[in-house]
Amino acid sequence: MDRPKSRPMVSRVIPVELFDLVVFGATGDLAQRKILPALLRRFVAGQVPEGSRLIGAARSEHSVAEYRAFAEAALAEHAAGVGTAEQRKAFIETLDYVTVDATGAQGWPELATKLVAGRVRAFYFSVAPRLFGALAERLHKYGMASGDARIVVEKPFGRDLATAEALNRDLAQHFAERQIYRIDHYLGKETVQNLLALRFANLMFEPIWNAAHIDHVQITVAETVGLEGRVAFYDDAGALRDMVQNHMLQLLALVAMEPPGSFNATAVRDEKVKVLRALREMGTGKTVTGQYRAGAIGGKAVPGYDEELGKASNTETFVAIKAHVDNWRWKGVPFYLRTGKRLPQRVTEIMVQFRCVPHSIFAGKGATMQPNRLVIGIQPEENISLSLMSKVPGLDREGIRLRQVPLDISMPDAFVGQHRRIAYERLLLDLIEGDQTLFVRRDEVEAQWHWIDAIRAGWRAEGLAPKPYTSGSWGPSAAIALAERDGVSWHE
Amino acid sequence: MDRPKSRPMVSRVIPVELFDLVVFGATGDLAQRKILPALLRRFVAGQVPEGSRLIGAARSEHSVAEYRAFAEAALAEHAAGVGTAEQRKAFIETLDYVTVDATGAQGWPELATKLVAGRVRAFYFSVAPRLFGALAERLHKYGMASGDARIVVEKPFGRDLATAEALNRDLAQHFAERQIYRIDHYLGKETVQNLLALRFANLMFEPIWNAAHIDHVQITVAETVGLEGRVAFYDDAGALRDMVQNHMLQLLALVAMEPPGSFNATAVRDEKVKVLRALREMGTGKTVTGQYRAGAIGGKAVPGYDEELGKASNTETFVAIKAHVDNWRWKGVPFYLRTGKRLPQRVTEIMVQFRCVPHSIFAGKGATMQPNRLVIGIQPEENISLSLMSKVPGLDREGIRLRQVPLDISMPDAFVGQHRRIAYERLLLDLIEGDQTLFVRRDEVEAQWHWIDAIRAGWRAEGLAPKPYTSGSWGPSAAIALAERDGVSWHE
Repeated sequence: MDRPKSRPMVSRVIPVELFDLVVFGATGDLAQRKILPALLRRFVAGQVPEGSRLIGAARSEHSVAEYRAFAEAALAEHAAGVGTAEQRKAFIETLDYVTVDATGAQGWPELATKLVAGRVRAFYFSVAPRLFGALAERLHKYGMASGDARIVVEKPFGRDLATAEALNRDLAQHFAERQIYRIDHYLGKETVQNLLALRFANLMFEPIWNAAHIDHVQITVAETVGLEGRVAFYDDAGALRDMVQNHMLQLLALVAMEPPGSFNATAVRDEKVKVLRALREMGTGKTVTGQYRAGAIGGKAVPGYDEELGKASNTETFVAIKAHVDNWRWKGVPFYLRTGKRLPQRVTEIMVQFRCVPHSIFAGKGATMQPNRLVIGIQPEENISLSLMSKVPGLDREGIRLRQVPLDISMPDAFVGQHRRIAYERLLLDLIEGDQTLFVRRDEVEAQWHWIDAIRAGWRAEGLAPKPYTSGSWGPSAAIALAERDGVSWHE
Repeated sequence: MDRPKSRPMVSRVIPVELFDLVVFGATGDLAQRKILPALLRRFVAGQVPEGSRLIGAARSEHSVAEYRAFAEAALAEHAAGVGTAEQRKAFIETLDYVTVDATGAQGWPELATKLVAGRVRAFYFSVAPRLFGALAERLHKYGMASGDARIVVEKPFGRDLATAEALNRDLAQHFAERQIYRIDHYLGKETVQNLLALRFANLMFEPIWNAAHIDHVQITVAETVGLEGRVAFYDDAGALRDMVQNHMLQLLALVAMEPPGSFNATAVRDEKVKVLRALREMGTGKTVTGQYRAGAIGGKAVPGYDEELGKASNTETFVAIKAHVDNWRWKGVPFYLRTGKRLPQRVTEIMVQFRCVPHSIFAGKGATMQPNRLVIGIQPEENISLSLMSKVPGLDREGIRLRQVPLDISMPDAFVGQHRRIAYERLLLDLIEGDQTLFVRRDEVEAQWHWIDAIRAGWRAEGLAPKPYTSGSWGPSAAIALAERDGVSWHE
């Protein structure tokens, strides 16, 4: 009989609606590295309908021609090889530019005249959060905040619950929640969405996706880089606010959430926020913080954080947390979170470790039993791997000898050849389509900060200082101990 | 982090104990095609300790030299390319021969003198079942039935419950059950054992291995051949007794059994026999029988069964059964069994179909939902494949598009290069080691016949005649209807 072969299926490219996308901060880093390249890719794929425009807006004086030249240079660096010369030229010609003073009056009337009624209208706030309120207010004042206009905001969304609430209030003055798209670009990743497909399109996982069958979950976001250009911002933030508050808690919520009634914005986010609110408030001894010192990564010497910064600092560049979700499903299951800079490898992954079988019928038969694991790789490679125990083929005298077989679920075949998609491509399309499922809702971001603030309050109360760790190591030894104490090893 | 790679693990070849293996029927078909080749392979692998011997015994007069020449010819045909010329020569030299009259006195004293005390002693009854009793009696009479001597018996083990019980009684007169090895060579297959590893060495399957999560099970044993040389035997037996009573019920038992306390002969067979006894007695309308007519297979015309036989017959060459296991685990789950000759493909497989997800959150998103399936391929290829739903990579406008991904569990890597093992290799080693786990126990074979007899009694009571089907088709249309009636399609 014919076994089902996995045929290479390609995504069906259907153009989105005609749109005007205004990018505030159009000359900034994000616009150059992500927004312009993502739009170019979708344009080349035929998903951007003719007539749609990207209108750059920023403080600096540029003519449209100058901005196009600027964008061309950015795309040469960050989207080399995408499309033909003709396609790239056509894309560049869709770009427009207006000089705008976010806190003044300059440029706003001009911007308003550029927008065409009857098409999708989106405003991308790729600027410092302190400007969000001013932008929202002016969009309203100059008549651009039409009923279905959308605004997109980037992280950091506040620096604690109070500032996040203030930002939400500012935006809410002029835009309804259904118009506000808070980006967490991790949600735009292929494997993050595939995790949802896996959990909810298969019968196999849901019955074992609970405390009775899952031993623990690990979420790792490891970077090899140090401060880079983010000196001022990072020292003010630290790893907890930079990584855990947003990306890692979103991943945790997707792993832990109950099955939503539907894959839509309301149902999915209702379930995520329940998880975030069920996060147990942290007691002492459940977190470890660290700050990197000089060391070596990939054989190359690198300086310590304090050296890079040029002064001593109490900011954590590493944090490990043993978290719990207090509900029926997850009672007693630890969620180990770990993120840091200057770690040995760049890797983002979720590891779900199932319990051991309750009793091994193969004991004493030369069988080494390993618990089942599901590893969801997010960076640098996107893949999902399920490890099962299988019989070693052959005639061992012990009877049945076992080995662990890792099964590649997500990318088993012809897809490898396809270009790695920027998460922003997905998110920009969803924005134009008006689908908020993969964007963060107000109550989520506030629940995230609520939990994070309590951790920081605990640190302050304890007078906790980050422990130094050598660059190129997996953080302070206390982080290893945090897991080992439970008999758990970090997945490396 | 390093992902676990599946390293090619090779089986550890540890020699078994020193043995004398007496093969009654040493010039027969099975000895030539399976027993001699299997032993040669294990000899070449270094698993047969020096001094061990195969002693052929049969009615025909041969010198040892003649038997060795006979064996050499058989191996040239059925084990070409195994080992070096030197190894093959050394193996041939371990062969001995005695002319024996199974029902008389000739040869028995001579055979007795050939056996060496203190080594494993096994007698392979590769003869017609009507001779089992005579052989057992003579082994006893001539002092060869030592306390740990073992006898091996082949199918057919009786032709109904009464004859099977009689055979068991005959053997039991001279040998204890722990000395009797009833072969069902399907149990020697790699994937059949791997099914047990999969079920009981992974946490993932047991919680969903029940009526709440499994929709139905299909077991198919399809042959393309017709009668071949088995005219007299087959017309007397039919598909139900030839295939279902032994192989297919054993497969069913392995799929359906509760977790045994240990992977040993008692625990595993205790669980299997419980399943066999829980088989629901068949009512009418749950079986379909057929007999092939002329047709074409692989583009080649083939005659009908009656033509091959040279007369009309009421023997079924095809049978399809909808069976049930009446216990808590399997309440309401149909086990569809199907076997036949002159079907379009040679294939033996088990297909476990899980239920659909109770609710699709992806409905209306261009997602085609398929239930999870586990397919255990036994012939012609041995493999185990688990099909899951995964997200189609890409930016479909519908959100998440799904596809079925078949994951190859058993043979994902370097093992493909290894020679296909004969199931007899495993079973012969287990015989020498004294491990009965993969042999059929008395109570099992009797439970199997009990269920089969009731089906045949039903046929007789109904006056059921097999429906004709064209060679090269999947049997009578009534067999399709048997499954379709439940909304189930046979896996092809």
